[in-house]
Amino acid sequence: MNYRPVTKEALSAFFDAEFPNNSLNIEMVGEKKARIRRTPNQADLRPGNTVSGPFMMSVVDTALYVAIMGELGLVALAVTTSLNFNFLRKPVANADVIAECELLKVGKKLVVGEVTLYSDGDDRPIAHAVGTYSLPA
Amino acid sequence: MNYRPVTKEALSAFFDAEFPNNSLNIEMVGEKKARIRRTPNQADLRPGNTVSGPFMMSVVDTALYVAIMGELGLVALAVTTSLNFNFLRKPVANADVIAECELLKVGKKLVVGEVTLYSDGDDRPIAHAVGTYSLPA
Amino acid sequence: MNYRPVTKEALSAFFDAEFPNNSLNIEMVGEKKARIRRTPNQADLRPGNTVSGPFMMSVVDTALYVAIMGELGLVALAVTTSLNFNFLRKPVANADVIAECELLKVGKKLVVGEVTLYSDGDDRPIAHAVGTYSLPA
Amino acid sequence: MNYRPVTKEALSAFFDAEFPNNSLNIEMVGEKKARIRRTPNQADLRPGNTVSGPFMMSVVDTALYVAIMGELGLVALAVTTSLNFNFLRKPVANADVIAECELLKVGKKLVVGEVTLYSDGDDRPIAHAVGTYSLPA
Repeated sequence: MNYRPVTKEALSAFFDAEFPNNSLNIEMVGEKKARIRRTPNQADLRPGNTVSGPFMMSVVDTALYVAIMGELGLVALAVTTSLNFNFLRKPVANADVIAECELLKVGKKLVVGEVTLYSDGDDRPIAHAVGTYSLPA
Repeated sequence: MNYRPVTKEALSAFFDAEFPNNSLNIEMVGEKKARIRRTPNQADLRPGNTVSGPFMMSVVDTALYVAIMGELGLVALAVTTSLNFNFLRKPVANADVIAECELLKVGKKLVVGEVTLYSDGDDRPIAHAVGTYSLPA
Repeated sequence: MNYRPVTKEALSAFFDAEFPNNSLNIEMVGEKKARIRRTPNQADLRPGNTVSGPFMMSVVDTALYVAIMGELGLVALAVTTSLNFNFLRKPVANADVIAECELLKVGKKLVVGEVTLYSDGDDRPIAHAVGTYSLPA
Repeated sequence: MNYRPVTKEALSAFFDAEFPNNSLNIEMVGEKKARIRRTPNQADLRPGNTVSGPFMMSVVDTALYVAIMGELGLVALAVTTSLNFNFLRKPVANADVIAECELLKVGKKLVVGEVTLYSDGDDRPIAHAVGTYSLPA
């Protein structure tokens, strides 16, 4: 397979086509990093003025996927094999969730990356995650 | 605080009140265990006849919460502090996701439990998870 | 590659040759499971009448390796890619550490297994772990 | 309890007293960070010119402990509750293992930190870990 990096515009177009109404905003991608943000919708909110765990986990998984595709191209068959989350602080309901991702290893079979999540406007992390993706042979 | 275990009927009523249209079915709870199932809806499906990662992660988190409340009562302030997932096989789209949870430790401050996920009708696990909840002081 | 399962006697001989004075006792291996025990030596003990974390982690890693070799044969190049530990109770110093391992997935590229650790004589787990090994192509 | 930060000299003296011949070198500690190094000895080496997993895991655990004590003082009763490792590249046998630790959250009950491991002389990480410590009430 002949991988090649892709731009954030190409990635955004890919996500818009695959997942309409995704509320995803790719702010930066490249050099084994990505920064994305998503706006929680009504179904993602939880009592106590906060955001659901599955929404945060979804943002993490997307950030890893964006960073991997930014590095390797549109690897349609890359699959998540593990995700490890630590929830650090309660996210705020009325703010975008921002994910900063850095790939720690880009191997032939596995990619490992870490993601730190923030509520927009607060520089203390709300969650941290490490994930592994398996690449097609 | 004076905890006491609750029945699956009481827990179901609690979830139905807090999360209307939750598609949650509590099959068993008690003795530090729980077994639940949920039917994925259209938004939870993904291309390739499968189910989204966030849906699976949501079922895991709910199973842990049910098992903890089954043991300790309606601990409204218990919060998830960590979740570690391994995704083992592709889930099937047209089947309920079943979670079997067992609590490994019920401490004063932390509860640790493991969850195995299945697609209904297949006894090979689709995912495995370990989670930690922090209890209020 | 043509894998074939191996007996606990063959595995014990392998470990004795590779790691002399290993204090490893393979009690059972086969059918995607293994049960091993090790006696902590003086250097593995810690103040407070307990056993070091690295000793427990070492027993977990060995149990996974034994279970994998019991299933796949002497896969010399299998490498640990991830290990996730939850420490549940203080181990006892003057007791063997027992590991019960079950493989959750034996794939072509990855093997995932879980391990529960006990202090000999107490049926409450002292630690739980999930590990992933990568297999040679 | 009245915590106060401690210097690297005080921490080194503490480790030398508690763990003689520990081969630990605390290079930096403070501001929720720590950088340590350890020289593997003969028993920590493995065939293939590399270093054992338990040695790497031990360095991670020590780095977290140093960073926590640097922040909170000599918290003798802090205990590791979870450790999640991803092994990224084979370490080199004839080089110190260096750990760079950053605490992601310092709460009243839990401290969460991440650690990146390097073989001295190579800036590509050999392992990454996230750990949680529980603090005494």
